[in-house]
This record gives sequence, structure tokens and C-alpha cells, in this order.
Amino acid sequence: MNGAESVIRLARDAGIEVCFANPGTTEMAFVTALDAVPGVRAILGLFEGVCTGAADGYGRMRDQPALTLLHLGPGFANGIANLHNARRARSPVVNLVGDHATWHRPHDPPLTSDIVSLAQPVSAWVRTVCSSKDLAADFAEAVAAAARPPGQVATLIVPADCQVEPAGKGRGRCAMEKPQGIDPETVQAVATRLRESPSPALLLGARALRRDGLRSAARVAAATGTRLLCPTFPARLARGAGLPRLERLPYFPEPAIESLKGVDTLILAGAGPPISFFGYPGVPSRLEAPGSLVTLAEPDQDATQALEDLADALDAPRKPPTPPDLPRPDPPVGDLNPANLGAALALRQPEGAIVVDEGATSGLPYFGAAESSPPHDYLALTGGAIGQGLPCATGAAVACPDRPVIALQADGSALYTLQALWTQVREGLNVVTLLCSNRSYRILQLELARAGVAEPGPKARALTDLSRPAIEWTALARGFGMPAARVETSEDLLAQLDLAFREPGPRLIEVVL
Amino acid sequence: MNGAESVIRLARDAGIEVCFANPGTTEMAFVTALDAVPGVRAILGLFEGVCTGAADGYGRMRDQPALTLLHLGPGFANGIANLHNARRARSPVVNLVGDHATWHRPHDPPLTSDIVSLAQPVSAWVRTVCSSKDLAADFAEAVAAAARPPGQVATLIVPADCQVEPAGKGRGRCAMEKPQGIDPETVQAVATRLRESPSPALLLGARALRRDGLRSAARVAAATGTRLLCPTFPARLARGAGLPRLERLPYFPEPAIESLKGVDTLILAGAGPPISFFGYPGVPSRLEAPGSLVTLAEPDQDATQALEDLADALDAPRKPPTPPDLPRPDPPVGDLNPANLGAALALRQPEGAIVVDEGATSGLPYFGAAESSPPHDYLALTGGAIGQGLPCATGAAVACPDRPVIALQADGSALYTLQALWTQVREGLNVVTLLCSNRSYRILQLELARAGVAEPGPKARALTDLSRPAIEWTALARGFGMPAARVETSEDLLAQLDLAFREPGPRLIEVVL
Repeated sequence: MNGAESVIRLARDAGIEVCFANPGTTEMAFVTALDAVPGVRAILGLFEGVCTGAADGYGRMRDQPALTLLHLGPGFANGIANLHNARRARSPVVNLVGDHATWHRPHDPPLTSDIVSLAQPVSAWVRTVCSSKDLAADFAEAVAAAARPPGQVATLIVPADCQVEPAGKGRGRCAMEKPQGIDPETVQAVATRLRESPSPALLLGARALRRDGLRSAARVAAATGTRLLCPTFPARLARGAGLPRLERLPYFPEPAIESLKGVDTLILAGAGPPISFFGYPGVPSRLEAPGSLVTLAEPDQDATQALEDLADALDAPRKPPTPPDLPRPDPPVGDLNPANLGAALALRQPEGAIVVDEGATSGLPYFGAAESSPPHDYLALTGGAIGQGLPCATGAAVACPDRPVIALQADGSALYTLQALWTQVREGLNVVTLLCSNRSYRILQLELARAGVAEPGPKARALTDLSRPAIEWTALARGFGMPAARVETSEDLLAQLDLAFREPGPRLIEVVL
Repeated sequence: MNGAESVIRLARDAGIEVCFANPGTTEMAFVTALDAVPGVRAILGLFEGVCTGAADGYGRMRDQPALTLLHLGPGFANGIANLHNARRARSPVVNLVGDHATWHRPHDPPLTSDIVSLAQPVSAWVRTVCSSKDLAADFAEAVAAAARPPGQVATLIVPADCQVEPAGKGRGRCAMEKPQGIDPETVQAVATRLRESPSPALLLGARALRRDGLRSAARVAAATGTRLLCPTFPARLARGAGLPRLERLPYFPEPAIESLKGVDTLILAGAGPPISFFGYPGVPSRLEAPGSLVTLAEPDQDATQALEDLADALDAPRKPPTPPDLPRPDPPVGDLNPANLGAALALRQPEGAIVVDEGATSGLPYFGAAESSPPHDYLALTGGAIGQGLPCATGAAVACPDRPVIALQADGSALYTLQALWTQVREGLNVVTLLCSNRSYRILQLELARAGVAEPGPKARALTDLSRPAIEWTALARGFGMPAARVETSEDLLAQLDLAFREPGPRLIEVVL
């Protein structure tokens, strides 16, 4: 057994099921090992950002790592943007990166680069393997690092000779570690503060945004009247009819600060402190009222249990009150705009859907409209590195083949990693992409206005415009073998959504806004 | 004048003409500065790899840097692969990378990452600006670093507040530095060795691959019978009828070693030592015969002048002999294959063409066939980071609007940065893309065979196959607004080439192999 085979065997035994791959010459031993040792599914991405974004989506939905297989420094570099998002989502991911043979690398052949320097900014754990004998043990450590709660990115750089030479021993585990519990004193202190606070709020994050965390948070709210908040861009949030509702922090800092102004106690449960996405002159970076912050659980601690303990400490009712039914949106009619798009999707999305929202400005109204939709999971762009939506949807669909996946996708961002459409076709994934075609980087046009540029000049207009030439998304989709339709009215959108959710496999709907 | 405007003014005054940009919120001050200070052309790429690859192509053809404008760590990361190629091509490039405001960054907002760590592996020079007052001076140093011969990648990270606050003073220069000359003793020593060597060869690199360097090398050859060699992947090589001819080092190490076996003196003139692209067990990394290496000029030295001095020291004829005319290829007929494709292109390419070859296995026969084509420049994939061809052709066409540009492009590589097609359409660039559609990563299939895998398993086949689903390149091109045709015979290819070279603007020909 060679080093590469020992890795794949260990991965399989540890319960790792999938490898999102774009290999090259220095990873050929891993490629053959995937055949030699059955049990790990290999999925080809036509660009590394597809592989890493898919691993992020998979990790968010499965709570266990997928592998990626990437080709030296440049291949890894192509995956960095979506690893940045995975890091911010705290997704478990194990990257296998091939490198030149240890004896060849000192000659500085053309593909040589400092992979460690590239990997560190997005990896909680990085190691370069020194010998095929160590490879299995190193891989086991990589998996353990990825499994540290709630999830981390681990990167193992494997020179080609360490893949092909004989393996050593090594054992792996993949079950995610249990997160660290919260001590009772902290819970009691938070309970006391909550009871005394006239205007408290709870900001949930990480695993506390799942069903159990939401229910415990709702118990706390029932006992104390605390507001329940979620970050602007949650990694994974359980939402929909019957589930406790959270207020989403606004994106721009001024309304976010306004929303938190009266909150004298802001309790963090799995979330970090609220920070403005960008810094604007004269606007604070921190959004909460000074002195209001109280930490119940850090993102890597067991926020779900802490919330339950807190609810118990507050003598909250065992069962949270059922939230009142919200009216479903009316079926939209006429011209398309973000509001009509949001209403149409919220109306039609099937129960159990996974909604990956990289809709940017076009996706905003959807979030409110979907409050009354059947229960679903909502996955957002955690790190701001665009090009996340289509790959993340791909990985979520691999993780949950029985659930419908919806990519609510801005056009400018989609262009970064459009190659994901091909993987969706090849793997027959149930992903419906709503491609929001407003033919601009609309958010940047808003930013120009915020910066006081009333009349952008021709270069500023050109650098934020995607209409010259217009991009034909149905042609791009068909180029990758995906059925596609283009809609310009709400009625046509509703009809296309019905069709898309009825038919198996992927489909793209270009929504002209 | 704010910091960003001071940079653009300095760039313009230094003769920098183009900025390949994909900006975001933290670069908005640069965007407005491009309007406020006229003179620098702004070209939008839909993905940062397009911007950096275009800057590489521009730098190779213009011998002066273009700017790139990139969005924080993830935006920069998306450009790394083609900066890796630019570094290996020794192209001058100045990257401007926005970052969070200095006062916002410590709060670790979502888009924060260690940009310096990402930038160092591909940059000869990296700096993070501390104040708007320093920005102009820092930028001038970046330009000077990029201009160091034969060219370097320089990366300047500019926090948003340093862009919008008042500028300081700073002056820039853009004329490329003159490379360091070679001392006469070295030239004499090489001349002596050459005279005594029974079987010498000259390996040319960097600027020595231009017309003047080739002519001096041909003088040396005329005087001594030395063989003239070029690297497998030259950054820019002058070729075609009437120009001295070089032997290209083979890609795989075994034939390259065979080719250099009898060479007792291998003189490097602007090239590094010959290294195998990848390391294979039992095959040496270094390709030359032991003890044969002699350095006339390092890549950053004046190899062209050194070759002229060497020719003079050898009393070589002032004018190199005119190479005998080579027969043009016969017009190919019938089914398409790499040989017919190479013959068709070599036959039809107009005088003065710039040929960007990322054709991989499909492009191999072209190189030999084009020996008899009208004089042209040949640009190869220097760093092995695929996805270089379409962006590089884009930048070359911006640099040389009056010359026809040809992208001889493999399909697997093209999929990495296909967004470049859109920029070619928007800017009306004269780029003809020959998309070699063999629907596989053929080179990896060869590598599997080299590794002794006679019958690849289903996963190895799937990971090297692009046929399920087949990619419709004409649809992808039309999705980006580009006219496209698909050809399956040599006759149709010849007809489409005639059409493409007659019509202005970009065009894609899908060549089904």
C-alpha cells in the first residue's frame, strides 16, 4: 500500500465520503488510489473554486469534512476565495494539495511556489508531509483538526514521492468533536443580567442557528422578552413556518447600529461581536451599544446546550410558544423585481429546501418573504468572497441528495465560478439556480452613492456595469449541458419554478430584473 | 487630491496606460480616481484571474507594467494563479489591492485576511500602505520594483482610508531599468570554452528570445556551430520566416535529457538551468549533462548584449546567415487532429501575429509547423498554472491593438478563466480563439500511462474526462456575446480562419478533435 492509498483508506474508515477534486500530475497517485480503495466518491470540478466551495456547502449540511484534491500552489490558490468563506462559516474541510517530489522541489521547477504561505490565511491547520511513512498519521491529524468544533479548514501538502512510496501506519477519526460546554457560573451570570436588563437581545451564531438552538432561544425569549437576532450572513440557519423567528442584523452599519441602539444587554450565543461589514468614515466598526456585550458561548463552544441551560436557569417554559402563522405572500404578478422574485421563490420552495443565498441586492426581499415558507435551511455568503453560491449549492446537493437545493444567485458573483453548473449536470444534482440578472454590480453602484458620488463618471459606470455586452445566461447554462429558461414576468417565473421543482436534476432560470 | 488620485496621476505621468480591474467596496476611491484623473484606461474583468493574466500578457508585449485593481485578500487570491505565471514569465505587473480601513481591520470583519501572506509567493515586492501621505511614495516604489529587469510583480496593499484621505507627495518612473551588463571577462571565458567545445549549445531565455538576441545567437552559431535552444515554455519568442531558428527543449524529461546528452557545453543566455517540469521516480531533475553548464547571462542581466559581445569575441560574421526558406505546410484535408490544426493555423496566421499557446497536447504540432509562418511572437504558459491563455491573449491585444492575436487554447485550461471572452467582446479586441476541444485532460491521461496505469479505473477516467456532459463552446462564447463557430473538418477550419482574420473583433472557433 502506498501513501496515497493509506490516506484514502483512512478517509473511508473515518467516514469521509466525498472528494471534490481537480487534480494534476502531482496528484495522480491520489487519483489512482481513489479507484484502488473503494468508498470515497470523486467529484470533478472544472475549477478549484468549485471544489472548495462545494466542500464548504457539504460541510455546512453534513457537519463532517469532505476532502478536496488540488494541484500545487496555483491550484490551491484558485480555491482560496471559497476556503475563506468556509473559514468564516466554520465549515470542516480537509484539503489535500499535491506538490513536487521532495527531491525535485529544490530545483524550483515552474510550478513551485510557497504553498504554506498561500494556505495559512485560510487554514486553521497546515502541514507539509515529509515522508510517505508519516503521511497517514499526518492525514489523521488533519482530519482531527478539521473536526474541531464547530469545524475548521485543514490543509495537508503532500509531495508526489510521499504519495507513491510505501505507507506507514496511522489512524483517523472523523466524528466531529463535541464542543466545549459552558460552566454553570457563566450561565447563572447571564441569567441574572438578563433578568435585570430592561432591553436585552440574544445574537445567535454557529450551531445555535439550528432547530434546537432556536427552540432554546425561544424559551429564553418567552421567559424574558429578549429579542432574538441572527447575523446578516449566517452559515446555516433553520427557518420557516413553525420555527422561532430571528431578526436579521441589517447589512449597512447605520441601520444595524440603529437596531441595536436601545439594547442594553446583547448576549452572544455562538456568534462573534457584531461588526460592520466594511468601515465607513465616521461610522463605528462595532455595532452594539457600548458596554452592552455579554458572551454566553463563543463560536467554538456549545452554544445550543448553553441556551438550554440558560432557559432552565430562567425557569422558562419547557416548550417554546408556537410562533403565530404568518400569511404567505400573494403570488406576484407583472414585471419582475427583487420583491416579486423573493415572493415567488418563498411561495414555491418545497418543504426541506436548502436555500443558498448569494443573491446580493437582488436577494434581499426574499429573506423576509421566506419567513412563512415551509421549514428550510438558509445558507449565506459568510466571508464576502463572491463566487460562493453555485459551488456551495453543489456541495449541499451532494450532502443532501433527497432535499431540493435552491441557489438564489446574483449574476456578477455567479460569473466567478460558473463552472459549477457543469458539475451539477454531471452529478445529476437537484439544484435550481435562480440567476438574478440585473446586469450590474448593483452593490457597488450603491457604494458609489454612499461615498457621495452622485454622477459616476464613465469609468466608474463601466466598472460596475455588466450590460455591454449583455450576458446570456441561458446560453452559458446550455454550454455546460444544463436546461435553462429565461423569464421576464412574475407569472413566467412561477411557472418555471413549478417545472424546476417537478423535474429531477439541475436547471437554471435566468430572472431578468 | 486624495491618496487614490495621487496614485492614478503618478501612474499616468509614469506612462502606465492600463488598469485591469475587478474592484469592490474597498477600492471605490480608486474607481472614482480613474475618472477624476484622466489618462489611465480601465478594463473590467469578470474574474480577477482575467485581470492578472491580462496584465501578464500586456507586460510581455509592452515591456512596461499594467496596473491591476483587486478586492482584498479573496480578490487577490483569485488572481494568484496568473500572477504565478507572470512571475515565471518575468513580466512587469503592479497590483493595487484594497483593504479595510486601518481602523476597521483590527475588528476582523468578514473579508479580512492576511493579504501579505497571500501576496508574497507571487510578488517580488509587497508593501501595505500605512497612511494616505505615504501612498504616492509607496506606489512609486512599487512601480520601480516592477520595472526591475526583465520585469517583476509588485503588490501594494492600500487600506480604504489611505485612498480617501489627503495625498502626500511622491514621484514615479516607469521606463524599465536597463538590465545589468556582462563583464568582458565572462564573455571571453565563454568564448574560449565555446571554441574548445566539440559539442556546444546555447539555451536562450528572457529578452534574448527577441529578434536582436536571436540574431546575435545566430552569429555565434555561424562562427562555432553551436546548437541554439529555447525553453519549452518561453514567455515571448520571436519566430517565423527569416528569423534564426531554435530547437525547443522537449517537455518530458527523458527526451530532453536525450537531446542534451551529447552537449558538453550548455551556455545559458537569459535562461535558467533546464529543469524537468515534474519529477519522475528514477529520472533526474536537471536535464543537462553533468558539468556542462556555463552561465553567460542570468535572466535579469543583459543577455542580448552579452550574445552580441560573445559573437564579436568569436569574430563571428556581422550578419548572421539567412536561414534557408522552409516549405509551408500543405493545406490539411479531412478530419481534424492536432497536426491538421497546427498546419491550418501555421498556414493562415497573418504576419505580425501574437500567438498565445495554451494548447497543451493539442497545440504541440503547431510549434513545428509555424517555423515557416510569417514573423510572429509566440507566448507560452510559463508557470504551468492553467487558465492563462485567454487572459494573456486579452492583455496582449490591449497592448498591441494593431496586431492580430491568436489564442491556441486547450479546453480544460480555457474553462478556468473563460470569463476573459467577455472582456474581449467589451473591448472589441482582435483575438481569435482556437478552442481545442478534445474533451479531456489529455495530459493527465498521458501521465496516468507514464505512471504505469494501463487501465485507469472509473474514477481516474472520470477525473480526466470532460465529455460527460460535453461542453458546447459555441454556446459559452455566445453567452458572453462573442461570435463563434464549430468545425469538424480541416477544410471548415481553414474557411473559419480566413473569416476570423478578415473580420475585426474577437471570435471563437471550436475545433473538435
